[in-house]
Amino acid sequence: MQIIRDKDHKTDVLKTVPASEGFRMPGEYEEHKGCVLIWPVRPGTFTNCGKEAKITFTVIARAIAESEEVYLLCDKDHYNEVTNIFAEDLNIKIINIETNDSWARDTGPTCVIDKSGEVRGISWKFNAWGGEYDGLYTDYELDDKAAVRICEELKLRCYELKDFVLEGGSIHSDGEGTLLVTAPCLLSKGRNPGLSKEEIEAVLKDYLGVKKIIWLPRGIAGDETNEHVDNICAFVRPGEVVLAWTEDPSDIQYGPSNECMEFLKKEKDAKGRTFKIHKLPIPKKPVCITKEELEALSFEPGEDIREEGERLAASYVNFYISNNGVIFPQFGDENDKIAVEIISKVFPDRKIYPVNARSIIVGGGNIHCITQQIPGRSDKY
Amino acid sequence: MQIIRDKDHKTDVLKTVPASEGFRMPGEYEEHKGCVLIWPVRPGTFTNCGKEAKITFTVIARAIAESEEVYLLCDKDHYNEVTNIFAEDLNIKIINIETNDSWARDTGPTCVIDKSGEVRGISWKFNAWGGEYDGLYTDYELDDKAAVRICEELKLRCYELKDFVLEGGSIHSDGEGTLLVTAPCLLSKGRNPGLSKEEIEAVLKDYLGVKKIIWLPRGIAGDETNEHVDNICAFVRPGEVVLAWTEDPSDIQYGPSNECMEFLKKEKDAKGRTFKIHKLPIPKKPVCITKEELEALSFEPGEDIREEGERLAASYVNFYISNNGVIFPQFGDENDKIAVEIISKVFPDRKIYPVNARSIIVGGGNIHCITQQIPGRSDKY
Repeated sequence: MQIIRDKDHKTDVLKTVPASEGFRMPGEYEEHKGCVLIWPVRPGTFTNCGKEAKITFTVIARAIAESEEVYLLCDKDHYNEVTNIFAEDLNIKIINIETNDSWARDTGPTCVIDKSGEVRGISWKFNAWGGEYDGLYTDYELDDKAAVRICEELKLRCYELKDFVLEGGSIHSDGEGTLLVTAPCLLSKGRNPGLSKEEIEAVLKDYLGVKKIIWLPRGIAGDETNEHVDNICAFVRPGEVVLAWTEDPSDIQYGPSNECMEFLKKEKDAKGRTFKIHKLPIPKKPVCITKEELEALSFEPGEDIREEGERLAASYVNFYISNNGVIFPQFGDENDKIAVEIISKVFPDRKIYPVNARSIIVGGGNIHCITQQIPGRSDKY
Repeated sequence: MQIIRDKDHKTDVLKTVPASEGFRMPGEYEEHKGCVLIWPVRPGTFTNCGKEAKITFTVIARAIAESEEVYLLCDKDHYNEVTNIFAEDLNIKIINIETNDSWARDTGPTCVIDKSGEVRGISWKFNAWGGEYDGLYTDYELDDKAAVRICEELKLRCYELKDFVLEGGSIHSDGEGTLLVTAPCLLSKGRNPGLSKEEIEAVLKDYLGVKKIIWLPRGIAGDETNEHVDNICAFVRPGEVVLAWTEDPSDIQYGPSNECMEFLKKEKDAKGRTFKIHKLPIPKKPVCITKEELEALSFEPGEDIREEGERLAASYVNFYISNNGVIFPQFGDENDKIAVEIISKVFPDRKIYPVNARSIIVGGGNIHCITQQIPGRSDKY
């Protein structure tokens, strides 16, 4: 554990375009230098100000640290708490960066890499998943600044594109020129209403070095991010994806999953390949927020409020691929084991780390949402 | 995760003598079927009713579950909490057994095994480390019953010896006839004042199948268990031990560690071998309870009370050996890494899991104290 304290140093903020400089977004299954996590403390997101989620985050941080560095962000008030949890010799670096919430996937930098192995970050505009239109909280200034701050600490140059709203959870790259997104999210009114689909495609191609964008028609029912792709579909290697699935026609996810399946079957990636599609079941029983959990949340003015019995966007697709493993969500559901078996076969060379994600899913996200990989060479793996 | 609910079934309680029936206590490094842990909730032991310790226990349970079963005891009130933390497909079985505190080493069964591989438990009398004389709490009835209850759930026959006070933390077996104990603990006035040293030896030989007992003169300074052996010295294989050590003559541990070293150098084990002794440093800076931690504890009448600045019995010797690894305490100290390096060399074939034990040490014990191995064949390893 190495402690990096808050400093005033600045990163080299770039206003140029990554693709034209030879950068591309790698697949999550490519080598990582590390992974960003943010200590969970927001009272309206995590029950009991994070009491339960801290256990889950600790387990996830340790699992990731087995094969790559973990950059664990926390605010000043929780600095002692965090240092008292993590052992010195773990691969976990504690960094004091203030944030509004803990979704590193969406507020951390999206990283690109060039042929020399140089890694750079991208800081998109973050507006809490919809800004004034349908954002989930109103004060997101610290979250919006997080990507640049993280790049500063990790000594990465950072492209800044603050007139384009995007979150890391809304894109999946295969590393070979193909990007998966969902139409409802990227075309939402709360993000870039002034831009056409073609203009959005142009930005993504310029910044992520991709050639083809796959616009899935739907995401996961109940996903308050306007249906981020990382809940419905993920690359497991180039040309191969897992898709959230249900065989139950009465489930609200039945339509969306089938639409995506039909769509994907007809699509080809940037290299002209059709997709090999693995069905990953959703939980058999909908995961809903309980009265007890609701009472353990405390919302601030302007923050999106949950309701008792509300169906949460629980999907096994929202896993994190680390250098040696897959950190894989569990919900105490009948399908937990089945999903682990499927993912074990999809990733035969990786260790599967099943983690009960209940305390995270209550906050609206899941394991992939709380992580953001930093590509690069790993000393650890 | 398999859930075993409270039932009224009874185990087969034996009043016979293990050694005469061919049973012996194995070394901790021999194969385990699993390990008992007890969910930490006691307000006078763990800060914030276990808020911090639950994180540590979760990390430890998962580390152990990588190579053996974990039997996680919890009371009815925390049953939902525990099931919401652990994923279904982990090797962790949640068992509803009510206890007073969470030191499975001392309240769980001491297990013995015979040549056929049958495992049986022993339930000693537990009196909270000294009963009326210098015990740490007055109501220990549930703790005293825990060993038999655990044997019931695990379907082990159980020897009961309720006129002899002993805790698992006060004995270390090499599995080949030698037992390590400390004189200050086993001869303490709060345990078996009516028995002579020879009478105590006879009981230990009868129940643990050992031939020779090594009576170390001292334990760790500040150890409120009257100096349990598991803080000062542990077998790492037959004929080989680690000993808590300091080179600082001004440290209160200097004398005790040197006394033990001199004593051990002259001793031989049951097979006539002298000991190979590895020095394991104690933390460089004494680990003391802070004002903030003290304020997060809440003592009940009759319970031993801590004081601000009190030195805690922090020792790297208090680790747990699982089938594939060593769960190893860390204190945020300069010696953390050095201790990990030493233990890695001592156990070259095991994975070292460093865990910050701060939240446990505040309660007076450490990683070894919260575990109790159940020997036997493992499906997992």
